[in-house]
Amino acid sequence: MADLTKVIECVPNFSEGRDLKVIEQILDCFRGKDGVKLLDYSRDEDHNRLVVTVVGEPNSVKWAVVCAIGKATELIDLTKHEGQHPRMGATDVVPFIPLNNVTEEEAVELSKEVAKEVFDKYNVPVFLYEKSASAPHRQNLAKIRKGQFEGMFDKIKEDEWKPDFGQEVHPTAGVVAIGARMPLVAFNINLDTNNLDIANKIARSVRFINGGLRFCKAIGIELEDRGIVQVSMNMTNYTKTPLYRVFELVKIEAKRYGVSVVGSEVIGLLPMEAMINTAEYYLGVEDFSIDQILEKRMME
Amino acid sequence: MADLTKVIECVPNFSEGRDLKVIEQILDCFRGKDGVKLLDYSRDEDHNRLVVTVVGEPNSVKWAVVCAIGKATELIDLTKHEGQHPRMGATDVVPFIPLNNVTEEEAVELSKEVAKEVFDKYNVPVFLYEKSASAPHRQNLAKIRKGQFEGMFDKIKEDEWKPDFGQEVHPTAGVVAIGARMPLVAFNINLDTNNLDIANKIARSVRFINGGLRFCKAIGIELEDRGIVQVSMNMTNYTKTPLYRVFELVKIEAKRYGVSVVGSEVIGLLPMEAMINTAEYYLGVEDFSIDQILEKRMME
Repeated sequence: MADLTKVIECVPNFSEGRDLKVIEQILDCFRGKDGVKLLDYSRDEDHNRLVVTVVGEPNSVKWAVVCAIGKATELIDLTKHEGQHPRMGATDVVPFIPLNNVTEEEAVELSKEVAKEVFDKYNVPVFLYEKSASAPHRQNLAKIRKGQFEGMFDKIKEDEWKPDFGQEVHPTAGVVAIGARMPLVAFNINLDTNNLDIANKIARSVRFINGGLRFCKAIGIELEDRGIVQVSMNMTNYTKTPLYRVFELVKIEAKRYGVSVVGSEVIGLLPMEAMINTAEYYLGVEDFSIDQILEKRMME
Repeated sequence: MADLTKVIECVPNFSEGRDLKVIEQILDCFRGKDGVKLLDYSRDEDHNRLVVTVVGEPNSVKWAVVCAIGKATELIDLTKHEGQHPRMGATDVVPFIPLNNVTEEEAVELSKEVAKEVFDKYNVPVFLYEKSASAPHRQNLAKIRKGQFEGMFDKIKEDEWKPDFGQEVHPTAGVVAIGARMPLVAFNINLDTNNLDIANKIARSVRFINGGLRFCKAIGIELEDRGIVQVSMNMTNYTKTPLYRVFELVKIEAKRYGVSVVGSEVIGLLPMEAMINTAEYYLGVEDFSIDQILEKRMME
């Protein structure tokens, strides 16, 4: 038996979308390193934010990410940071996502190792979030980040918002959230109406918080240039709530408003399994295994 | 831009399914070599045949395959070979299949390089077949192989069956077919009837030779233990004749016999794109690109 190749993904968000010199120094931590592959990055000037997508062998990714957080801590000063996107740290959030032959537990463990390094090396306090959270109220990033950098100095004095590592907000780099989560698929379904109310009603009927599917977040949005509306979704666990299930459910809900589904979109990257389990469903394939996929076998 | 990783697949068939010592020596040509990955092999004692699946960097795969053909030529004596499967050579057939960042033309070129090496090194005559064929009547393996090893000594004296390399049948190793072809997907669709006639009628309506889909071969077969019948297919180009299209067509044809599709099977390995273009169709995804698949990006 060949050794199985372990692959983890990391999508760190840094609070710099404008200064290319800073951005390049952060990206350099992911370049030319064995076992690390920089897949993608996007910077947004309005948000003043950089989002990096990197994959690779877990230990190699770990040290590349620690390097990048060090650079961000050194080069980004949050006391001077302005942008539309909420933020609480020079490195704002660092999710680790298990991809190939990595368990959720291993991703959680890796996120905690990175958290410890970040505090030991750079003195930046860390909140463990999502699957790595030390308490249920600390799973949700938005709740941790509420108050942002400016409010964090008071917030972390509260017992329930004491960081997992560290006690004092870093004066220029703030605090950071680090944790493990499942891959997220951004999946949008287009309707043949311009009535936003209908998209919102359908969104409420399929999303978890209102009684819908367990791993679905959804809102209605307008596509003004096309004159239609869309159910815009984040699928937070495609293995347990597959794309075909929400797609069929949206069609069923749309019917009561006399509306049809006219197409869909997948935004950004997604693991092949999210598409393959959908093909498997529609073709009614019996006893299919992901190991029948050539590319999966090649990665082992 | 990173260099794109080129990946080719090769599925050589050898005429030995019983003698493990011979089989191991052939397999050793694919083991422990940089750029070559032995994905799978299966030997069949009734067929007295070994089928190997190997993937990797084209030049590395080329030399591993040349090595294996050498071993088979040395160790397999067709004058003593018995088995249910038709065969004409110690190495019977060697298809090269372009997978990742390899064009059909490059696969054809590689198959010709291997053909030349095989004749120069081992004096085994080669027929180029499928996409590599030097004439239309030599594309089909079954036509080349007709007469088998025993009939080949006379057959290659005919002008239209002169090998592409060599003039004399190798006394113990016969002749070999080498060429490039698209990945083949073995896809079977199950019907809720035990009437083989219906499966055969549907097979005839969807397969190319009777006026059906361009890249579909199909026959009806009985699944005796389950008491149902099946349309058993080889899809010879899933990019141009996708799985969803034949699946929907079989459903439509089944309807006229009052029969339903109850499931399907995919046998063996298939490229992820064959499943992904099917998911794309059923979800109606607009502007999807295979480059949105994480694993695809990781292989580049």
